[in-house]
Amino acid sequence: MSGLGLIAGEGELPLLVARSAADAGLRIIAVALSPSVTPGLSAFADRVYRIGPDRPEDIVGVLSSEGVDQAVMAGKVWKERMFEDGAIRAGVDLCMGDNPARNDDAILRAFVERLEGAGINVREQTEFLGQAIARTGLLASREPDAREWGDILFGFQVAKYIAGADIGQTVVVKNRVVLAVEALEGTDAAILRGGRLGREGAVVVKVSKPAQDMRFDVPTIGKETLRTMHSVGATVLGVEAGKTFIVDIDGVSRLADQMGISIVGL
Amino acid sequence: MSGLGLIAGEGELPLLVARSAADAGLRIIAVALSPSVTPGLSAFADRVYRIGPDRPEDIVGVLSSEGVDQAVMAGKVWKERMFEDGAIRAGVDLCMGDNPARNDDAILRAFVERLEGAGINVREQTEFLGQAIARTGLLASREPDAREWGDILFGFQVAKYIAGADIGQTVVVKNRVVLAVEALEGTDAAILRGGRLGREGAVVVKVSKPAQDMRFDVPTIGKETLRTMHSVGATVLGVEAGKTFIVDIDGVSRLADQMGISIVGL
Repeated sequence: MSGLGLIAGEGELPLLVARSAADAGLRIIAVALSPSVTPGLSAFADRVYRIGPDRPEDIVGVLSSEGVDQAVMAGKVWKERMFEDGAIRAGVDLCMGDNPARNDDAILRAFVERLEGAGINVREQTEFLGQAIARTGLLASREPDAREWGDILFGFQVAKYIAGADIGQTVVVKNRVVLAVEALEGTDAAILRGGRLGREGAVVVKVSKPAQDMRFDVPTIGKETLRTMHSVGATVLGVEAGKTFIVDIDGVSRLADQMGISIVGL
Repeated sequence: MSGLGLIAGEGELPLLVARSAADAGLRIIAVALSPSVTPGLSAFADRVYRIGPDRPEDIVGVLSSEGVDQAVMAGKVWKERMFEDGAIRAGVDLCMGDNPARNDDAILRAFVERLEGAGINVREQTEFLGQAIARTGLLASREPDAREWGDILFGFQVAKYIAGADIGQTVVVKNRVVLAVEALEGTDAAILRGGRLGREGAVVVKVSKPAQDMRFDVPTIGKETLRTMHSVGATVLGVEAGKTFIVDIDGVSRLADQMGISIVGL
């Protein structure tokens, strides 16, 4: 019997995917990559395995032996662990073989190849999360002012430049000064650092990579992003329309209104 | 009577410039941009004024009325102050007029134009700091290992990419992963962040901008850079040969040897 393997990182995305796949009548075999993966998965999945990203072969093995012929990846895997955790490093080395590259895309692509080598077709996240994709224009009530619009456009260019080199996908700017560029530390840390340096009114822009593989690592924002911004007085969030997931889009829009934050899809 | 205006930020560079200019028989009028500018300046300068970067017009005015016909800029001015300090923001706005750009280069170029408009020719820092420029090759005893060499070359490319967009000039990498990219927070903060994420063995690379104006903002390293690296276990410092100042080059080399840090000029 075939089914869908759900390789689940942290955050709310895996649950949204599971619900959507279950609605479509798919049998779901979930692999939770860390103990803090949302426990609600078991409501939608036939079985939930806990296998860390340090054991890529076991993930492929379990899905194979469950007779799964397609899979989807969703949720965050903290990149910092690659350095903190010797076991994860070894898992990455196992996937990569002689390839010296260790950037996200290369690692994830190698993992996808392992899955496909085992006859498991990896599907795009968007197939399960269509309604959550950011559209163009204002995504909350507050309209940016002239200075903010200038910074949104400037920040979009800088973010695309950074993403093009696979460095990170988020920048924080103000008055056309780059306050923070995300690298391994992640989006929230970059927002906090840049927002503090810029004081009130920083603009956060998050974009996709130029050749974004929609099977993994799609830029995602949610209420937590807004709370982080609010804590440092950042006032605008720019996201790339058509290529960014917004988890609980109505709730995010309401929270942005309460906080006086503009959200713009570009 | 003509003379040299020394516009002095923080760090040891202004003192080195002052000593070299005094040796060349120049009369020196120093403008200290902050109270923490090295007090030794008065040993070499005819006069030391204290004028903050929030008063660019006063700096030009004082140098003019002292009959100065040439100037040199040296030392750090903390960029974060641009946002923290309303007065500095106003000073920058005054210099920039209608120009919306607020990146370092644009601001410094506008300030240089003010000086030149007042008949003060701005000279390159290298004219006074020739012996302090990094040369190609190993600048301390320890040779990088194979992994480190790979990261030095990877980091150099990434740093040049970042510098090309006037974002920052320093990156921290390990195993070809970008751990940190410097933006407004400065070199030391980027080294600390990246070094902590990478654990032992991170590689720090600092480069010039593709069109580095040697009149200002020349990349500079010193013992403090090594101490910051040592505190997070970073093991290699790569710098751009011919375009980086090393303050107290013999002392830096000795300290690197004690700490087991490689320094490479590329």
